[in-house]
Amino acid sequence: MRRIMLRVAYDGTEYVGWQKQDNGLAVEEALNRALSELTGEEISVIGASRTDSGVHSLGNVAVFDTDSRIPADKFCLAVNRYLPNDIVVRESREAAPDFHPRYAECRKTYEYTVYNSQIPNPLTGRYSYFVHYPLDVDAMDRAAEYLIGTHDFASFCSAGAQVKTTVRQIFALNCIADPPAPDRDATAENSPRFCGRVIIRITGNGFLYNMVRIIAGTLVQIGQGMYPPEKMKEILEAHDRTQAGPTAPPHGLVLKEIEYRLDPLP
Amino acid sequence: MRRIMLRVAYDGTEYVGWQKQDNGLAVEEALNRALSELTGEEISVIGASRTDSGVHSLGNVAVFDTDSRIPADKFCLAVNRYLPNDIVVRESREAAPDFHPRYAECRKTYEYTVYNSQIPNPLTGRYSYFVHYPLDVDAMDRAAEYLIGTHDFASFCSAGAQVKTTVRQIFALNCIADPPAPDRDATAENSPRFCGRVIIRITGNGFLYNMVRIIAGTLVQIGQGMYPPEKMKEILEAHDRTQAGPTAPPHGLVLKEIEYRLDPLP
Repeated sequence: MRRIMLRVAYDGTEYVGWQKQDNGLAVEEALNRALSELTGEEISVIGASRTDSGVHSLGNVAVFDTDSRIPADKFCLAVNRYLPNDIVVRESREAAPDFHPRYAECRKTYEYTVYNSQIPNPLTGRYSYFVHYPLDVDAMDRAAEYLIGTHDFASFCSAGAQVKTTVRQIFALNCIADPPAPDRDATAENSPRFCGRVIIRITGNGFLYNMVRIIAGTLVQIGQGMYPPEKMKEILEAHDRTQAGPTAPPHGLVLKEIEYRLDPLP
Repeated sequence: MRRIMLRVAYDGTEYVGWQKQDNGLAVEEALNRALSELTGEEISVIGASRTDSGVHSLGNVAVFDTDSRIPADKFCLAVNRYLPNDIVVRESREAAPDFHPRYAECRKTYEYTVYNSQIPNPLTGRYSYFVHYPLDVDAMDRAAEYLIGTHDFASFCSAGAQVKTTVRQIFALNCIADPPAPDRDATAENSPRFCGRVIIRITGNGFLYNMVRIIAGTLVQIGQGMYPPEKMKEILEAHDRTQAGPTAPPHGLVLKEIEYRLDPLP
């Protein structure tokens, strides 16, 4: 029996999320079906991040155990032939039999994309949150700084999460205005302005339920001028979900990468 | 009676193209319905570019005539409320009553996007053509130069086109490798290599049926090393469709912008 590790990309639009639900198809189910067809075994993957319905991925990690004699690095191309077009295995390799993608120490990077313009763009709508009031990205970036470090993020955790602790470490958090070549808006000299694309990039050792989306929703409110950047410190210290902003919609979120501290090699 | 000009963006995936067909909904039909609902008149738009099924737009132009008293610049936000999410009017203004978006002299810019990697990317698949063999973008760019200027483009025109002349002028044509931040491939030092995103950007005074997609298909063959860049000159001078490469798929193509030489103001 070998443990195979996969890096999995998917467009989350058509899925109920990573984890099996009653109301539709989950990404892990589609993967289980494809791997089972490929190997003739009953495969059950374990995922690193149980992304929500509508959230996308370029780098989620999953493992499964198999007796198949397919070389580890060949699973990638082989399983893609059995998968729908909106799920792609980007890499496969052997992992240690006791490597668990959810419990192993890691750094996860997410990107939340806001499309900030007066008029929506039908070619970016699937992968970004459309915000039609001007944003002050510098204010957002200053607010983001308060969250970097090890904190109790209870204010940024949706109810219903079953976790031992709401303490997490954020290594990096940036808000970047990315003037998109296709359709940059005419912008005023001073903030707030219509920024085109705003990317909120966050790296941490783990995230609570809806944490990235609540942080994004709060940063957008600050960008909008509803609160000054310093308000973020107050919200963090309140340990109270009702103090933070709304949960931003799922389709703006992409799980970009998971890096493990120790190489998961066998 | 006033003539209103619209700039129209759309995700072409779900449409049979700009023009009405028997086999599904056309973009112009969706616009006609929305404008008719808004104004209470029976509106019929005239489009500048009759894009094919699956082709996208950020800047197609359409005009229509109306007795409505809605201010010209307000049509944009008003009609978007009646349109599906994958069609967005980005601008509206008044135009001269005799302004015809198809016959007025203009420069049209299209972008054709190739996603060049060993493994597809489910987050770019809707708007790019996946090519899984390495490409030499410099060779593509050198080949592209032969097409710049005024030429008979009969080799790059699909059968079935009803046009008086196959002579067109190309003002600019570039092939640009755009290493995408999200998932750049490990690349070798020398060409050809996996380039990530390759953008073929073309500006001309008009394009024959499938012309941009046939140019893209031919450039990809040259990038793949099937022919040297100089082959493009031969193909152009043959005036024979069978000499050029295949018609690249529609979903990689975006109509970016149409600029009229004379302002269409009334």
